[in-house]
Amino acid sequence: MKPENRKQEIVKAASILFKEKGYSAVTMRDLAKAMGIKAASLYNHIQSKQEILSTIIIDLAEEFTEGMNKISESDQKTIQKIENIIELHIDVTLRNADGLASLNNDWMHLEEDNLQYFEKMRYDYENNFRKIVQKGTEDKEIKSFNIEIIVFSTLSTLRTLYLWYPKQKDIDADILKKDMISVLLSGIV
Amino acid sequence: MKPENRKQEIVKAASILFKEKGYSAVTMRDLAKAMGIKAASLYNHIQSKQEILSTIIIDLAEEFTEGMNKISESDQKTIQKIENIIELHIDVTLRNADGLASLNNDWMHLEEDNLQYFEKMRYDYENNFRKIVQKGTEDKEIKSFNIEIIVFSTLSTLRTLYLWYPKQKDIDADILKKDMISVLLSGIV
Repeated sequence: MKPENRKQEIVKAASILFKEKGYSAVTMRDLAKAMGIKAASLYNHIQSKQEILSTIIIDLAEEFTEGMNKISESDQKTIQKIENIIELHIDVTLRNADGLASLNNDWMHLEEDNLQYFEKMRYDYENNFRKIVQKGTEDKEIKSFNIEIIVFSTLSTLRTLYLWYPKQKDIDADILKKDMISVLLSGIV
Repeated sequence: MKPENRKQEIVKAASILFKEKGYSAVTMRDLAKAMGIKAASLYNHIQSKQEILSTIIIDLAEEFTEGMNKISESDQKTIQKIENIIELHIDVTLRNADGLASLNNDWMHLEEDNLQYFEKMRYDYENNFRKIVQKGTEDKEIKSFNIEIIVFSTLSTLRTLYLWYPKQKDIDADILKKDMISVLLSGIV
């Protein structure tokens, strides 16, 4: 197996353990055991548990950041932009729900530079979303409710998807996208 | 101070510590220190850290259960019922956001009987909500989206309120209720 693939395998196995037990409670020994290899051989591929955590979280945060930048710089209408943001969250959730558990539960265990970098990305992400909503209310595409309430109620649902969707056996991704967009944009009544 | 009030004070101080550090990391010594009293004197009022946790969580869960039972047994229309559920969550959040942090983060540390009792209440709560939505779609009061998506997107927002609302300085409770009801029921476009 190529070294790059081996590293990906380690990151994937670690995501599952971090999700189940939390970053702090997982040892490199646990990880090696879960993968059926020796702890020493993990270190041929990664330097530390911290490196694994930052790989999981920073990769995901950069993916969200790039997606959001592309959407917010486009000249689409606000409603289309928000639809694209909903799809971005669903796509990432479908691909890596375990990693999102680390991002949500264990981001505070990132060390110095990565922690700051992560917090900046999260702040910018929310702020870009806020600006999109703001522009939408100015253009009368979005109703003039309190902007913070709109931002919170949309993001709280999208950020919790990783917990809920893996347990749903009967909802395929297309229905999820279609109905989630309708519910969040047009409501339920 | 009356013993009953003293116990409430202990529960309140513990809620704040549990929120900040998590149930597992807080000791009775930490709690006594935060309250400026001796650890031994805590035991005049409560038997254990577990008793504090179960007081916080079970009281809140019973409050939600009673509120939901009243709403679901009433003969109001579905939309009115859902509005009342949103108000229930906002009222509890306004009164006890710290306790809700324990309920959300530390429920799994409840011991045997209380854990089962809590899980049953949570299951019944969600199920009652699901039945209300189901009835609403049958009566054409609610759009015919996938019911699980409606239940998830509404509850994920209401259950995260305790994290977000305490940081909002500029949104008063009346605006919150009004706009949250509109956003969740009628959407943002």
